[in-house]
Amino acid sequence: MLEKNDTFVSEMIKEAEEGLEEGGIPIGSILVQNGKVIGRGHNKRVQSDDPLAHAEIVCMQNAGRIGSFKDTTIYSTLMPCYLCAGAIVQFGIKKVIVGESENFDGAKEFMESHGVEILDIKSSKCIQLMSDFIKKNPKLWNEDIGC
Amino acid sequence: MLEKNDTFVSEMIKEAEEGLEEGGIPIGSILVQNGKVIGRGHNKRVQSDDPLAHAEIVCMQNAGRIGSFKDTTIYSTLMPCYLCAGAIVQFGIKKVIVGESENFDGAKEFMESHGVEILDIKSSKCIQLMSDFIKKNPKLWNEDIGC
Repeated sequence: MLEKNDTFVSEMIKEAEEGLEEGGIPIGSILVQNGKVIGRGHNKRVQSDDPLAHAEIVCMQNAGRIGSFKDTTIYSTLMPCYLCAGAIVQFGIKKVIVGESENFDGAKEFMESHGVEILDIKSSKCIQLMSDFIKKNPKLWNEDIGC
Repeated sequence: MLEKNDTFVSEMIKEAEEGLEEGGIPIGSILVQNGKVIGRGHNKRVQSDDPLAHAEIVCMQNAGRIGSFKDTTIYSTLMPCYLCAGAIVQFGIKKVIVGESENFDGAKEFMESHGVEILDIKSSKCIQLMSDFIKKNPKLWNEDIGC
């Protein structure tokens, strides 16, 4: 069971908060291998003017060409969408720790059908962060998920 | 039916060839909207040291924040993998023109199950380009698809 004070959970939330401070969409991600953070990032669509700069994508890009992602765990404050889930499945990441899926149910079933283990920690902090953002910025949010 | 001399087909192959000339993986992509190329790119994993810089991802990034991708068609010299297929599904691209799927069968069924129309033109030029590359660079190719 994940402890409430899990360092990686705090780190992914910190990433989301940094994104918000920059005027972006508050979604953060961390990539962990052998108990160490080897990649981190937050959604940069607004900041980089890049429609595909989702948190998990930026995080994996920042990890760089590590060869294989098979023994990594990815953390995301929000359930991954099909783009990010596609990256997770293609590169063989086997475990995803998700902050919440109340504001977006994403591609959970798709990942699970490819053998990815999902742990949704239902963090009230993650839910609040995203819910506040969506209320204030519905258009920006809809663009992010291709609606 | 797609003509053999379809300009967009030539353009995607040109992108793949540019990638090869740069020392990269020869996969090219073009994004078309209302009969015009609005994005283009080729696989840049080697050139940008970015494991997620697949041709279709680079192409969509280059198109930029166009608001909606729903009325676009994406061309790719090779059947899209789950990462690229995830982007296509998430952003609502409805049609994919594929150069070939002999060297990689990708995520065709996943896209089709989400209502994406796939036209595989089985281009001998695309097949040759990729087959030659894989024979010479098996390790690089396997890294590209997360094997």
